[in-house]
Amino acid sequence: MELSVDWVVGFVDGEGCFHVSLNRHKEMTTGYQVLPEFVVVQHQRDRQVLESLKRFFKAGVVRGNHDDRLCLRIRKLEALQQVCNLFGRHPLKTKKNVDFHKFRRILHLMSQRRHLTREGLLEIIDLARTMNSANRPVMDEIRRELARSG
Amino acid sequence: MELSVDWVVGFVDGEGCFHVSLNRHKEMTTGYQVLPEFVVVQHQRDRQVLESLKRFFKAGVVRGNHDDRLCLRIRKLEALQQVCNLFGRHPLKTKKNVDFHKFRRILHLMSQRRHLTREGLLEIIDLARTMNSANRPVMDEIRRELARSG
Repeated sequence: MELSVDWVVGFVDGEGCFHVSLNRHKEMTTGYQVLPEFVVVQHQRDRQVLESLKRFFKAGVVRGNHDDRLCLRIRKLEALQQVCNLFGRHPLKTKKNVDFHKFRRILHLMSQRRHLTREGLLEIIDLARTMNSANRPVMDEIRRELARSG
Repeated sequence: MELSVDWVVGFVDGEGCFHVSLNRHKEMTTGYQVLPEFVVVQHQRDRQVLESLKRFFKAGVVRGNHDDRLCLRIRKLEALQQVCNLFGRHPLKTKKNVDFHKFRRILHLMSQRRHLTREGLLEIIDLARTMNSANRPVMDEIRRELARSG
């Protein structure tokens, strides 16, 4: 299935998600690992569309999500940079574009290795907590922990 | 906001819905009125995108849905024919395309006034019951009523 750039932008405006989570990680200087990912979830009947998106982005893994859902998940930083370049050149039209710009800023901070410093991590948390409201309590808890240790 | 055809196809692949409901209607020969509609639901922050889609299709109404959601709803038969022409020329890439073809068949039956006959209405019900699984119990109930009265 051949996908045009505009179709991909429209589909991601509807179904895509830019997501950043933080994992506790003893070996990181800050105690936390930053995990950005780009995800598209679909019903399993549309595996073919996810596989086509994977070919389009030349990156990612298609696997089971929950229930009868599959997801395409892109986690490699280089591939995420490519995803960001694409949506930089072909902007999303929904308010998801706001999340996208925060996501791109986080990737930029990571490329500068700022996520390995307490200040950089705090900036990332402040961006990430407003991207997915479900994320907010966890981010706020980590923020408090960092404040105590700072 | 200018929308390209490919963006619209991608966005509708994600967010659009082809829906057909039946209403009891004493003045119809069959006792039922067929109500096809094309719907796109979005969070209210993306009213602008729905308004742009309305301009793109030159049809429809944007109004409140449930909670913090808005929807663009197209119900006029002539406008729905135009929507079908578009997705006929520029096919959806997800399995939503299967629903689309059933929807187009139902519109065709209606343009032939077949929905005013018991046989035509039964064919419409058989198509519509497989389009939205939530619809199925209602459609099956109406089917039984029509069978009893036939």
